[in-house]
Amino acid sequence: MRKTILTILFVLCGIGRVWAGDEPPTPESNKNLIDLVQTHADYVWTLVAAALVFFMQAGFALVESGFTRAKNAINIMMKNLMDFSMGTLAFWAVGFALMFGATSTGWFGTSGFFLSDFSVGSDPWVLAFWMFQAVFCATAATIVSGAMAERTRFIGYILYSAILSAIIYPVFGSWAWGSLYKGSGWLEGLGFIDFAGSTVVHSVGGWAALAGAIVLGPRMGKYTKDGRIKPILGHSMPLAALGVFILWLGWFGFNPGSTTAANKDIAMIFVNTNLAAAAGAVLAMFTSWIRFGKPEVGMSLNGALAGLVAITSPCASVTPLSAVIIGAAGGVIVVLSVLFFDKIRVDDPVGAISVHGVCGAWGTLAAGIFNIGGTSAKIIGVQVLGVAACFLWVFPTAFLLFKLIDKFVGLRVSPEEEMEGLDIAEHGGNAYPDFEVSSYGGVGIGVGSGSAPVAEEVSSLEPVRQT
Amino acid sequence: MRKTILTILFVLCGIGRVWAGDEPPTPESNKNLIDLVQTHADYVWTLVAAALVFFMQAGFALVESGFTRAKNAINIMMKNLMDFSMGTLAFWAVGFALMFGATSTGWFGTSGFFLSDFSVGSDPWVLAFWMFQAVFCATAATIVSGAMAERTRFIGYILYSAILSAIIYPVFGSWAWGSLYKGSGWLEGLGFIDFAGSTVVHSVGGWAALAGAIVLGPRMGKYTKDGRIKPILGHSMPLAALGVFILWLGWFGFNPGSTTAANKDIAMIFVNTNLAAAAGAVLAMFTSWIRFGKPEVGMSLNGALAGLVAITSPCASVTPLSAVIIGAAGGVIVVLSVLFFDKIRVDDPVGAISVHGVCGAWGTLAAGIFNIGGTSAKIIGVQVLGVAACFLWVFPTAFLLFKLIDKFVGLRVSPEEEMEGLDIAEHGGNAYPDFEVSSYGGVGIGVGSGSAPVAEEVSSLEPVRQT
Amino acid sequence: MRKTILTILFVLCGIGRVWAGDEPPTPESNKNLIDLVQTHADYVWTLVAAALVFFMQAGFALVESGFTRAKNAINIMMKNLMDFSMGTLAFWAVGFALMFGATSTGWFGTSGFFLSDFSVGSDPWVLAFWMFQAVFCATAATIVSGAMAERTRFIGYILYSAILSAIIYPVFGSWAWGSLYKGSGWLEGLGFIDFAGSTVVHSVGGWAALAGAIVLGPRMGKYTKDGRIKPILGHSMPLAALGVFILWLGWFGFNPGSTTAANKDIAMIFVNTNLAAAAGAVLAMFTSWIRFGKPEVGMSLNGALAGLVAITSPCASVTPLSAVIIGAAGGVIVVLSVLFFDKIRVDDPVGAISVHGVCGAWGTLAAGIFNIGGTSAKIIGVQVLGVAACFLWVFPTAFLLFKLIDKFVGLRVSPEEEMEGLDIAEHGGNAYPDFEVSSYGGVGIGVGSGSAPVAEEVSSLEPVRQT
Repeated sequence: MRKTILTILFVLCGIGRVWAGDEPPTPESNKNLIDLVQTHADYVWTLVAAALVFFMQAGFALVESGFTRAKNAINIMMKNLMDFSMGTLAFWAVGFALMFGATSTGWFGTSGFFLSDFSVGSDPWVLAFWMFQAVFCATAATIVSGAMAERTRFIGYILYSAILSAIIYPVFGSWAWGSLYKGSGWLEGLGFIDFAGSTVVHSVGGWAALAGAIVLGPRMGKYTKDGRIKPILGHSMPLAALGVFILWLGWFGFNPGSTTAANKDIAMIFVNTNLAAAAGAVLAMFTSWIRFGKPEVGMSLNGALAGLVAITSPCASVTPLSAVIIGAAGGVIVVLSVLFFDKIRVDDPVGAISVHGVCGAWGTLAAGIFNIGGTSAKIIGVQVLGVAACFLWVFPTAFLLFKLIDKFVGLRVSPEEEMEGLDIAEHGGNAYPDFEVSSYGGVGIGVGSGSAPVAEEVSSLEPVRQT
Repeated sequence: MRKTILTILFVLCGIGRVWAGDEPPTPESNKNLIDLVQTHADYVWTLVAAALVFFMQAGFALVESGFTRAKNAINIMMKNLMDFSMGTLAFWAVGFALMFGATSTGWFGTSGFFLSDFSVGSDPWVLAFWMFQAVFCATAATIVSGAMAERTRFIGYILYSAILSAIIYPVFGSWAWGSLYKGSGWLEGLGFIDFAGSTVVHSVGGWAALAGAIVLGPRMGKYTKDGRIKPILGHSMPLAALGVFILWLGWFGFNPGSTTAANKDIAMIFVNTNLAAAAGAVLAMFTSWIRFGKPEVGMSLNGALAGLVAITSPCASVTPLSAVIIGAAGGVIVVLSVLFFDKIRVDDPVGAISVHGVCGAWGTLAAGIFNIGGTSAKIIGVQVLGVAACFLWVFPTAFLLFKLIDKFVGLRVSPEEEMEGLDIAEHGGNAYPDFEVSSYGGVGIGVGSGSAPVAEEVSSLEPVRQT
Repeated sequence: MRKTILTILFVLCGIGRVWAGDEPPTPESNKNLIDLVQTHADYVWTLVAAALVFFMQAGFALVESGFTRAKNAINIMMKNLMDFSMGTLAFWAVGFALMFGATSTGWFGTSGFFLSDFSVGSDPWVLAFWMFQAVFCATAATIVSGAMAERTRFIGYILYSAILSAIIYPVFGSWAWGSLYKGSGWLEGLGFIDFAGSTVVHSVGGWAALAGAIVLGPRMGKYTKDGRIKPILGHSMPLAALGVFILWLGWFGFNPGSTTAANKDIAMIFVNTNLAAAAGAVLAMFTSWIRFGKPEVGMSLNGALAGLVAITSPCASVTPLSAVIIGAAGGVIVVLSVLFFDKIRVDDPVGAISVHGVCGAWGTLAAGIFNIGGTSAKIIGVQVLGVAACFLWVFPTAFLLFKLIDKFVGLRVSPEEEMEGLDIAEHGGNAYPDFEVSSYGGVGIGVGSGSAPVAEEVSSLEPVRQT
């Protein structure tokens, strides 16, 4: 039966003609077949890459969960499961049309809702392309989750997440990537370089995360009245580290897969991606070593992610040596940025704003500065414009959205629920019922969390207490 | 030396002739080369997909382990490791021959034992095909493990698992898929649609799981004499959630890989798979929200799996919109089914019977109902026949097998061993020796397990106690 | 913009000519295109395989962490993150040139530092090939980490790790694999068979691990003065098991990917890899069952790895039946070897020396013995020579290196730091701050660790205490 279906689909796809021929091959028929085989390779590569990018959802879930407390682990898994699931449906129904629609207002597309570009017998490329774009969209959405961890109402989160996937991400995406399918975009028209989305994906997520963290306010007990910053330790460094390894793996789909074609270019993109990640991890480790006196695990893990985010935009248009420099700089920047946001009391439990927002901006600028074909004030200017456009579109929109949700639905849980943990309060569950879990979130010297320990705190051996 | 080996193999494979030619290319020689390159792409795609399906073993191990108690975690890892390892050897020695043998009794194949279809110099396609089928077989075997968790003797389990891989799964598989290699099958002859195995793989596993759970009886303390149902919470929701993400990833090999060819069809299959999973997760979440008052994590995770199982049969022959509907229905069905089996006191710690048996049946019917080429009473009738044939072959056979094992080997551990935990009793080990693990399996309000909390229980805040 | 970049790269790569043609296709132009499409498939396969091999880093991190104590979990994650990150940079700067340089001293290459073989417009194959080789190099480096776990200073570890990646691994690699890119090697000149690196990768790692374990000495409390061996239990068997599943998955890139070409050979390699792993797991389980009275999880997991290591050399040149035998023997050998090293008081917390060193040697010999094209004393002699050359190069060099590091930097932490755990001492962190973690490393009957419980110990129910 399987064969029958395949045969039917084959014929429907209009390729039966090409293959079926019992007639002797000609150069023309061969050329058609060669194009077809190349197309098959493109499908395989694009979809394998999409699978790897999908897996990043697990990576984000583990990083976020590992860097936060045990009492919120179910909530984090639910948010990550749901932002992908709701996001998939939202991007199918609305987002893809806004981002890549053949007809457009100039600011967003207006056709192709519910994958209506595809029908039986039409070219299935739109499906492969949709799949790859859908997992990208979900990446942007899930980034926000980390910065808003441990205090957000679940209903508020999934509402926001669906709207980001349906509207906020696709609109900016249409400006920078619209022409990849049928649309077009004003930013790419100016020459904006963002090959795999340092800005389109990561900064969009990062600036929305910033808006969310500001509207929510910090977790209870994070910043004391006397001006001290209390580290709140993550509950499982092995899960966080596994998450980073999974993200690194997923990035081998994210960046090289953005060719959406099986070609030789993927090699350089792959190598650049790996070198930048390695350099980011090493430099963040040394930066934390110098700053805190010890090589800190949370910073090192975030350093790898910083390198990956930074190389995402320039991965196809810089040399491997440049990739090392870009990643290394990302590793330093992320440590300083985490400390900065902690200083200004924006509580980001996993460092998402720094990793994705700030390093996304850095990577986008780097794509102009280190451009393999040479750079110019104009190239860099366009990159700056793209970075600014992203911030100016995403931050105010997301800020408004969070304010509206806060007002009409409720964005933050009650202090009692926050203390009890979101797992019980929001989901009636317990992530680790067989284990003795301490209620106050752990003791430690402060450089074991994935987030923002300030140097002053490192010497303090006081446990974190919430009240 | 590596080159030398490759050269030898190359020549052995009989393709040296085609490549080596210094003669000028002709349309005929080019056509042969084009076919060869397409074949290479088919090998790559089929084997990459097989690798993804293999990884589902880790997903099953984590879901099952996360949804059960810490004191049985080693046992679950051992069962999952061994059903794949024993299953691989059993499918190599016996199963593949029964399923795909060139000669056949009409009910099962009778040639190709120990991969004897392959010899030096023969076409290695049988090896690629075997690999893909072997990981499918192991999936069916491992499904049973979850429903029988926390009370099965290890020796009984590996015995049953080897027999399922060697006989029960392959015999049914030959009816529905025999012609994919050299065999043939009566069900596929009637037009039965089961592209990637909602019935062949998942229902086979699910109905064997049902037989096992019935023969074993419920875990101690699960159902009290006064008619109450005690939730027994799983010990790690992060591991369970990671398992679901891994399974979702693996399904991108499972369904699209079932083309065993690199072609354009994989795009629609991929998209349908993803949409159904997303819809299943979302609908299961809302169903649990309505039923229990909170969005429950175990149900949501099982909802994603339900959508995936349901779309497995129809993935290549329905539209994306139908995939959303099929997955969404799966998400509702799985919640109701879990509650039903708990009500009739079939203790299935992870919900495997509902996810794989019931949703497998639903998906197979859906393949008839939503068929892209139109449906008919006849088409649906054949689907019903296939679903019934599966149940009538698997359930009695597995039931008998479990009864025989119970009688001659022993299927269930002693009450003392069950209380102590299978890790110590069966393996002399301790999964978490550095942690304080509570002896009675956790406290909670009952909607944190992956299995069947009934609504009546949700309001009860009583801890689970076993005696 | 993405399209623009692609176009530029396209032209740079010199393939624009071939594709762009509006002229009618000829057999010659078609032949060029066919070669190009095959090349694209080779890139895709090689890089997908590289991604899978990369993921083995996560597998090693989990196995090593799961088999050791909670108090050292951050340290282990940091070592695994850093040996890959430092190793990537070291292999980029130095290692690749020593291993594959076009110019050579006869003992190692002398050109291609910092990927200088690649420049804009040149063939990017060197990048794809580098990527695949870089993840291999990192595998060798990370093997050592397990044997030196729980007592090594972090600074000493990363120093050693960088030198192994830059020098020790590449020099031996050049002898056996140099001709795979531009170099050549004396061992391969003799006909040495090591298709995917049982010796080149695994034994190199294993013998360096042996040197490290000897120089370091055993963990405190492991061997008592009265001659007893205390099992020190690993802290998370689920993480260890997940690690083994990930490694098994990664090996589907490691072995079949070593073709660095999309061809039919990958099928047999894939099947052999899987069969050997399965046989190794099953036989190790039964061996542990006979030896200890129970099927032990650590041994079973290591049995799968033993099978995988053993088949790595012969995977492309033996039949599937031979693969079963080779893997099965590996499963027995690893159990005996673990017991042996414990008896002679070489403390290897995860069994790395046995899995990678000993089974690597076994696999390399097996490649000669079971050679598909027949064997001879000469073939086996060359294999023995290769095994010996590896030991004689790696063990003394690594021994000296560790001694030098010990003397000038310090290789082992202080007894106080070892007791406290490396997480606090070396990284100022706590891997599990929300959980009650016992200070002495767990209680148990001794067959729950991944390492070397001796039978005499199994009956002792005494907890492990350190001091």
